[in-house]
Amino acid sequence: MRAVDVLKRKREGRELSREEIAFLINGFTAGEIPDYQVSAFLMAVCLRGMSAEETVALTETMLRSGAILDFSDVPGPKIDKHSTGGVGDKTSLIIAPLAAAAGAIVPMISGRGLGHSGGTLDKLESIPGFDVRLDEKRFHRVVSDIGFAMVGQTDAIAPADRKLYSLRDVTATVESFPLITGSILSKKLAEGIEGLVLDVKVGSGAFMKTREDAETLARAMLSTAARMGTKAVVLLTDMSQPLGTHVGNALEVEESLAVLRGEGPSDLKVLCIRLTAHMLVLGGIASNVEDGETRAREELRSGRGLSKFLDMVRAQGGDPRVADGGALPRARARKEVLAERDGYVAAIDTELLGTAAMVLGAGREKVEDVIDPAAGLLVGKKMGHEVRRGEPLVTLHYNDPSRLLEAEGRVQRAYSISDRPSSAPELILAVLEQ
Amino acid sequence: MRAVDVLKRKREGRELSREEIAFLINGFTAGEIPDYQVSAFLMAVCLRGMSAEETVALTETMLRSGAILDFSDVPGPKIDKHSTGGVGDKTSLIIAPLAAAAGAIVPMISGRGLGHSGGTLDKLESIPGFDVRLDEKRFHRVVSDIGFAMVGQTDAIAPADRKLYSLRDVTATVESFPLITGSILSKKLAEGIEGLVLDVKVGSGAFMKTREDAETLARAMLSTAARMGTKAVVLLTDMSQPLGTHVGNALEVEESLAVLRGEGPSDLKVLCIRLTAHMLVLGGIASNVEDGETRAREELRSGRGLSKFLDMVRAQGGDPRVADGGALPRARARKEVLAERDGYVAAIDTELLGTAAMVLGAGREKVEDVIDPAAGLLVGKKMGHEVRRGEPLVTLHYNDPSRLLEAEGRVQRAYSISDRPSSAPELILAVLEQ
Repeated sequence: MRAVDVLKRKREGRELSREEIAFLINGFTAGEIPDYQVSAFLMAVCLRGMSAEETVALTETMLRSGAILDFSDVPGPKIDKHSTGGVGDKTSLIIAPLAAAAGAIVPMISGRGLGHSGGTLDKLESIPGFDVRLDEKRFHRVVSDIGFAMVGQTDAIAPADRKLYSLRDVTATVESFPLITGSILSKKLAEGIEGLVLDVKVGSGAFMKTREDAETLARAMLSTAARMGTKAVVLLTDMSQPLGTHVGNALEVEESLAVLRGEGPSDLKVLCIRLTAHMLVLGGIASNVEDGETRAREELRSGRGLSKFLDMVRAQGGDPRVADGGALPRARARKEVLAERDGYVAAIDTELLGTAAMVLGAGREKVEDVIDPAAGLLVGKKMGHEVRRGEPLVTLHYNDPSRLLEAEGRVQRAYSISDRPSSAPELILAVLEQ
Repeated sequence: MRAVDVLKRKREGRELSREEIAFLINGFTAGEIPDYQVSAFLMAVCLRGMSAEETVALTETMLRSGAILDFSDVPGPKIDKHSTGGVGDKTSLIIAPLAAAAGAIVPMISGRGLGHSGGTLDKLESIPGFDVRLDEKRFHRVVSDIGFAMVGQTDAIAPADRKLYSLRDVTATVESFPLITGSILSKKLAEGIEGLVLDVKVGSGAFMKTREDAETLARAMLSTAARMGTKAVVLLTDMSQPLGTHVGNALEVEESLAVLRGEGPSDLKVLCIRLTAHMLVLGGIASNVEDGETRAREELRSGRGLSKFLDMVRAQGGDPRVADGGALPRARARKEVLAERDGYVAAIDTELLGTAAMVLGAGREKVEDVIDPAAGLLVGKKMGHEVRRGEPLVTLHYNDPSRLLEAEGRVQRAYSISDRPSSAPELILAVLEQ
């Protein structure tokens, strides 16, 4: 088999065999097929797409390029959640302890943030001492002891994905449904889970800006997971405005703790209860979504979710004083961005708002950028809210004032204020099943 | 400007600016933009195409990546011909001296063969001593003294094309009308010519298998040349069977000399007269194609074409005894491939026939293969010919018998013999003008 012949077939729009896909991906991972052939292949996939069978073959090859974890000795259903990401999306920090408190085993491997979008690992690392780089043995022990752990991808997990992603990033081949599917599922299925709840975000702060794109990706992930024997469900959820009110790493940990204490904004709370419920249903712990919601609310109300979270923080070396917010870094300075007119918040360019937090240090413009865990913003006004001229829309939290003006400008431009009253968007747009 | 952003725009099907194309191609040629970004770009171009403006920008950038020759001190119109290649296509060897004899200046830079298709340089090198690697100064002197010269591409000419072609070859991105246009025209326009006759081959032995593809390529080349200020005309000509009867390097030189002596097969002669006529029209030497044909026939009849060819051979170090065929290498062995049934030649898979010559040593399977100049085949039966069982279809000329069986098999499979009488295909299918 020659790589150039496989490329030619893909360029011509033909369906590749499982063997052809494995030949390319394994050869690339082993360093035998050069990056210039693989980048041409990736571009051909972007423009020609992949059939369901091809997507499975890709995902399976990527999954099998590394270790598949085994938690079979830990009693309980192994279930995880993955979100396609957005602004203020800190649900992982809340639902993993809730699901674990209810009896699920959640061996969660997460990623870092880039651009407007935050990453779970960055949020957790704002807790002093918190270690996301557990080795396989310690990861296994924390999951076994507490019911969940939250770590970063190791070199052992889906190395093909890491190599492919680096190449996609510099060759404009990130936006492809089958490639995204392969990347997400190869990493998640390497956790050795039985069920996966997928939170596919739609809107101005999401990677999928349209409902159509979000549904296409959702269907690709559901069908691929099904063909690989993993139960999955997709929640299409709104990302036309930030989730909750806190954006930035320590700020989002703070807000997550508030939710786990039974406080916090209702949109975030509602979504977390719902996501947890679906995890419990997939794991056979709840008989249906309503039952799952009841269980999730009970873990919240009783404080068992909070104490699971604090157990995990301690087990991963984090400062337990985070419980009352004491250990978290706080920005030295605040700046309110004020509404320039009366009206109603009609729309928020959430990606732009996310990059306002990013330029203050809450996120990375390039992968090598260093994050300021204290930086970020509090969202005072959300869609449908009435505002008066001079009222704060957003409060910026920052240590480095060098890009403050830029951040303020981005916030101002992100808000569309209209004379006509408007309503908040629906939070959960659809639930798609296999 | 970042390469990844340009790639993204091309992936999305947007039109790139002249600056974006120059940024990518110049950066690649200078070694500043890595091959994996350029291969993704090339694949995007294959699948998204290029507008006329983009194709001009690509061609111009490739042209200006190297030297543009200047023959302005040599009196006479500078005109060349390019063929998209096929099997038995040796017209360059005949028309360059004919056009030069009639007063055109033909600074011809040619290529080598690959796969089923022969290359002018390989044919010329079958003449003992013939040197296709003249430096710029000597190339200029031969053109100035004799009116034409036939050399290979130097490092100074369109280096971007050489680098891009190597990458296209291994990334399945050869088959793209704008990329082919850029490759052909950047090299040809670097000759500093005013007019170019393009022989676009169509059929089983050509790169363009369908008339539609051939016309698309022809239109792209005509429009690009026009926008770059070069006169051009395209002849769409038949390549559903070999041109003439001789296939193989020394064999094709022999047949070319026959034509220059006024002998040789009529299809080859007719096409050469016609191509020369168009060169003379583009150069303002002939007032119309009929006039050009009269001039071309006169150069042939008078023997001036032949003597121009021999002048050039001498000037480029070749053995002048080639005139009577004496100097050319001859294969030690012959083998006739016989018809297995009575009937009429209905079709010839000319690419397959070309690879029969290739496996005997007349061509290259891979660029690094060494050619046997004496190897090749004589075509005894062409389309429409009546054959009887046991009559020779083709005579193989070979030194190395190791792949003789394979060559015989390919010849047998290449011929379709039918009971119904059939006719020869039309040789010149269309003439397309700017």
